[in-house]
Amino acid sequence: MNIAIVGVGLIGGSIAITLKEKKYVETIIGVDKDEDNLKKALTIGFIDKALSLDEAINTADVFILSVPVDVIYNLLPIILDKINDQQVVIDMGSTKEQLLASVDGHVRRGRLVACHPMAGTEHSGPEAAVQGLFDGKTMIYCDVTNSDEDAFDTAEAIVEQLDMHTVFMNAREHDIHTAYVSHISHITSFALALTVLEKEKSQGRIFELASSGFESTVRLAKSSADMWVPIFRQNQRNVLDVLEEHIHQLQNMQTLLMKEDYQAFYKLIKKSNKIKRILK
Amino acid sequence: MNIAIVGVGLIGGSIAITLKEKKYVETIIGVDKDEDNLKKALTIGFIDKALSLDEAINTADVFILSVPVDVIYNLLPIILDKINDQQVVIDMGSTKEQLLASVDGHVRRGRLVACHPMAGTEHSGPEAAVQGLFDGKTMIYCDVTNSDEDAFDTAEAIVEQLDMHTVFMNAREHDIHTAYVSHISHITSFALALTVLEKEKSQGRIFELASSGFESTVRLAKSSADMWVPIFRQNQRNVLDVLEEHIHQLQNMQTLLMKEDYQAFYKLIKKSNKIKRILK
Repeated sequence: MNIAIVGVGLIGGSIAITLKEKKYVETIIGVDKDEDNLKKALTIGFIDKALSLDEAINTADVFILSVPVDVIYNLLPIILDKINDQQVVIDMGSTKEQLLASVDGHVRRGRLVACHPMAGTEHSGPEAAVQGLFDGKTMIYCDVTNSDEDAFDTAEAIVEQLDMHTVFMNAREHDIHTAYVSHISHITSFALALTVLEKEKSQGRIFELASSGFESTVRLAKSSADMWVPIFRQNQRNVLDVLEEHIHQLQNMQTLLMKEDYQAFYKLIKKSNKIKRILK
Repeated sequence: MNIAIVGVGLIGGSIAITLKEKKYVETIIGVDKDEDNLKKALTIGFIDKALSLDEAINTADVFILSVPVDVIYNLLPIILDKINDQQVVIDMGSTKEQLLASVDGHVRRGRLVACHPMAGTEHSGPEAAVQGLFDGKTMIYCDVTNSDEDAFDTAEAIVEQLDMHTVFMNAREHDIHTAYVSHISHITSFALALTVLEKEKSQGRIFELASSGFESTVRLAKSSADMWVPIFRQNQRNVLDVLEEHIHQLQNMQTLLMKEDYQAFYKLIKKSNKIKRILK
């Protein structure tokens, strides 16, 4: 099987590394509009050759789309127009509702399998690709009933190589849940970094004093704007919904602190501690 | 040297473990109002014996106070009243201004060395104590000019065993900077947990979907209310100040999202990415 990785960054590269390691594919083709990224991917060795998208469409059996979601949104109809009825497209985008609506009714919609791996790091680019990124993490499949059975089987066989749990959702559900458990975390982390950069004029002091707690809450603020702005754009409604609730929670804490109602503040923290039961 | 650890939890226990490992002390005495904690500490083995505070005052050379900051606030004047002019008290509290003001002018103020290790985890209690907790982290000394030289030397020799960097500040500075780089992280994490618990009624979904990004921003929400409410109380003014800025940053992001001004949103994220230069 020949697989084309469209977007040879953190996600695409980490998939390629695993598929190569498991000797699951004959050839991994890299497609990327950034020549430098292709060179890096060839040097690291997780792709065998670099091709243009059109060349890849002539040779690859499977296309894994691991570019920012605005690029997926633009590319997907073009790719579905050009592929044949045996080729399979798997998108790895972090938002689904707008994307899948845009190809709803496409004559080759069935060749698309919509996936979202709940895995990543704050780093990006080919150098960020790592072995084992997906181990034990969750892969979400969206609207699989709209995928052809053989296309889904192909996607599933590839995902199996990544050692992930799988979950099935419709696109709407997906975008709501990911706003809660992923997109809002990035918003808070970006805002926390801005807060500290604003208040703490002495950056040396941040460096000196940063505890592991601070680093862990602010780590996501290193994430790529090119990747994240399109996610917030495509999931704007759900992100705004959860952001409103988050600001409300912070304002509630602010009010309790101002009123010095530490008993109610204590109860709030005890309530938030319940997250312990859910995460280990 | 006999050292009394007052509060045999995460911080006190982790100090005891390191001092024992380095064979720096003859006897480590555990003092804790919670009998269960003392039993656990004896079983784990990081204290040699459990004594009451009064008994410990008769035998220990050094007292390490690693209880919540409200308890330090109450205990410190009592301990300074009772110790002699050779004994040394080292407090490990996360807030300093109110505490040090409360013993300012005490006849034995010089016997106190005020410290704050920028290290910890979201866990608490004797079982949370771990080896190496302080390795490479920062120890803040506050208002050291108010400590007797020999008391400071004793504290420094102990801290040296913990392999930490040291930083010197006055109490006011300390409380401002820790509000920025530690206290606000806990507030955002508690609020994020409350947000997700509120919005995501299906806790199974959180468990299934939680990515490492979510876990990292919400991890601190597992922290102890008994430890943190007194910190927010004692550092109320600075915490409110940085919390106001943080809410402002989130509201700014909210406004840009509502207005769909993704260009300005992109710039904001790029700005927050600057945290990369400060943290590795």
